[in-house]
Amino acid sequence: MAKFIRERDGKENDESYSTHNDIFLSDGASPAVQGTLKLLIRQNTDGIMIPIPQYPLYSASIPLFGGVSVPYYLDEDENWGLETKELKKSVEEARKNGIDPRALVVINPGNPTGACLTVDNMKEIIKFCVNEGLVLLADEVYQENVYIKDKNPFNSFKKVLYKMDPEYHKSLELFSFHSISKGFIGECGKRGGYAEATNIDLSALEEFYKLFSINLCPNSLGQIMIDIMVNPPKPGEESYELYIKERDEIYSSLKRRAIKAVKVFNSLPGIKCNPADGAMYLFPNIKLPKKLIAEANEMGRAPDQLYCIKLLDAKGICVVPGSGFGQKKGEYHFRTTFLPKESEFDKVLADFADFHTTLMKKYGYKEDDD
Amino acid sequence: MAKFIRERDGKENDESYSTHNDIFLSDGASPAVQGTLKLLIRQNTDGIMIPIPQYPLYSASIPLFGGVSVPYYLDEDENWGLETKELKKSVEEARKNGIDPRALVVINPGNPTGACLTVDNMKEIIKFCVNEGLVLLADEVYQENVYIKDKNPFNSFKKVLYKMDPEYHKSLELFSFHSISKGFIGECGKRGGYAEATNIDLSALEEFYKLFSINLCPNSLGQIMIDIMVNPPKPGEESYELYIKERDEIYSSLKRRAIKAVKVFNSLPGIKCNPADGAMYLFPNIKLPKKLIAEANEMGRAPDQLYCIKLLDAKGICVVPGSGFGQKKGEYHFRTTFLPKESEFDKVLADFADFHTTLMKKYGYKEDDD
Repeated sequence: MAKFIRERDGKENDESYSTHNDIFLSDGASPAVQGTLKLLIRQNTDGIMIPIPQYPLYSASIPLFGGVSVPYYLDEDENWGLETKELKKSVEEARKNGIDPRALVVINPGNPTGACLTVDNMKEIIKFCVNEGLVLLADEVYQENVYIKDKNPFNSFKKVLYKMDPEYHKSLELFSFHSISKGFIGECGKRGGYAEATNIDLSALEEFYKLFSINLCPNSLGQIMIDIMVNPPKPGEESYELYIKERDEIYSSLKRRAIKAVKVFNSLPGIKCNPADGAMYLFPNIKLPKKLIAEANEMGRAPDQLYCIKLLDAKGICVVPGSGFGQKKGEYHFRTTFLPKESEFDKVLADFADFHTTLMKKYGYKEDDD
Repeated sequence: MAKFIRERDGKENDESYSTHNDIFLSDGASPAVQGTLKLLIRQNTDGIMIPIPQYPLYSASIPLFGGVSVPYYLDEDENWGLETKELKKSVEEARKNGIDPRALVVINPGNPTGACLTVDNMKEIIKFCVNEGLVLLADEVYQENVYIKDKNPFNSFKKVLYKMDPEYHKSLELFSFHSISKGFIGECGKRGGYAEATNIDLSALEEFYKLFSINLCPNSLGQIMIDIMVNPPKPGEESYELYIKERDEIYSSLKRRAIKAVKVFNSLPGIKCNPADGAMYLFPNIKLPKKLIAEANEMGRAPDQLYCIKLLDAKGICVVPGSGFGQKKGEYHFRTTFLPKESEFDKVLADFADFHTTLMKKYGYKEDDD
């Protein structure tokens, strides 16, 4: 795995090489993330900065370990961009409220947003962490799921760190997470992942090691799977060509599906959807009719949850309400994957479009409602 | 799994049947145990009663979740028996020290002791839990590893509970744990297990369910394995006879090895070893020479740890120091499995005997040192 990271990030920075001392195998990225949260949270005034919208693992685990979530908002109008101005505002507000922010979670490519950060943006984020004394938790599990590689290929935070002035190389404390659950393998049921630690104090790493050792026996098959993931067939090997063909087919199909879904969503009344530059998700914004919102409120349900249940009932299509990921007050979203088979994808989108237009008509949605 | 439990425990008690609502799948028994500890521990005065010696998962996890271990001692002179008098003493002392005991952990068959509880003893333990308001955490992962079935077959705490007066049936709060890691399958690297909840308040079970749902994706292969474990081949099925033959061979071989190891240990100077009625372990008591103890103290090492390292260095045999499991002050043990292949077992025991007698001679051990 150390070799995989080295080859991914380029070989120019000898000082940055990880060894087996810096890499912690885990049963998927989730337990690795939870281990770092456990490590960082000392008391109930310790804060962890998380994006809104975010992957619910974070909002669920932080209070479990006795800490506080410190939200920062991604900018939907700027393709779910991450503004350091917003980070600054969020960290200052937390401190004003007696919270001690300890770490910043960045999910890149984004879940549920699908957004991919630029190198310049990542440099700003690194500077922000160093200046504010925050550990950076880089959730990079979608690193292989980038559909705009020509424009903006994936860069790990570690790679970007070592492209910066040497003064930063030893000052950013970084954990990076990866997993066999995503990419084109998508073996979430096999549970394999890792955390890579960069510039983490040795005494903290010792505690981390102890934490990982409590469950005495690892998930051996997940470890084998991650070995397979980081050691794919090489040029000249028998299965190389088939491997590349299958891999590229899966990615190009995912890209086609992402583009198609965005186009359909944006053609429907009251829906606005950013493109998916990466990951496996879209997080469209839906303007819900006032009558539907009132109905949901009466039932004591989140309006976007009611929308999702109606979709499930009507068409058997399961999407997740935006309220589970976090969103600005008064806004509604749902998260959908673009994982249904390509042969069924047109039907899924047509069914969705039929459900949505029928519902909007039934509840008397007008553009003016915006 | 509900069906497996029902068939194991007998069908006479309709009211005791578990359903899917009472059974929580987990990646091995460890995360299930940790989930219940997390559920039970509210604050740093909450105590969990654990046996000494115990499996280190408990002593490591309890402080991790912010609670306190409340030790009770197993009686080595009574074949590692569990005396309710000792439980009573322990719970009272804890309360005197401001600790609020919330649960009692019982490992049956025992790890590292190999002891199997009698039905009468289990009834006493259940009464104790009900009277003291303690949740019983029954670590029953070695339920298939019982080598004295004629004398004392395995009984689950749930089965024993429903043999008692009806007044107890609804008053004992019980979690039972099981796993694919033990038995004759021994697939610890596959990570499959479960917790069965009996008489646990619904609102607590809802929290438990939420806790298990944070890691969104289960270890699918571990779940398949546990399905295989609880649904073994049935009489009349094609593989039934081979299955029974292989299973019985493994168990009878384990039993032979356990008996053989105990005999060798008890023939050596300064070692006293209880028989293994169950599980996979022996936990012999070793009287260490004063010179060795002094040497360990000088090195800042536990004396039994030094003994184990010397054994590893001299013979390549790995056993675990008793200090990792807990023992009375001034006593020393090690825990060994009897898992080495039967074809190699005589050699392992001969190597051990050679190491031990050489070491005892070198360090000038005399029976009088006792």
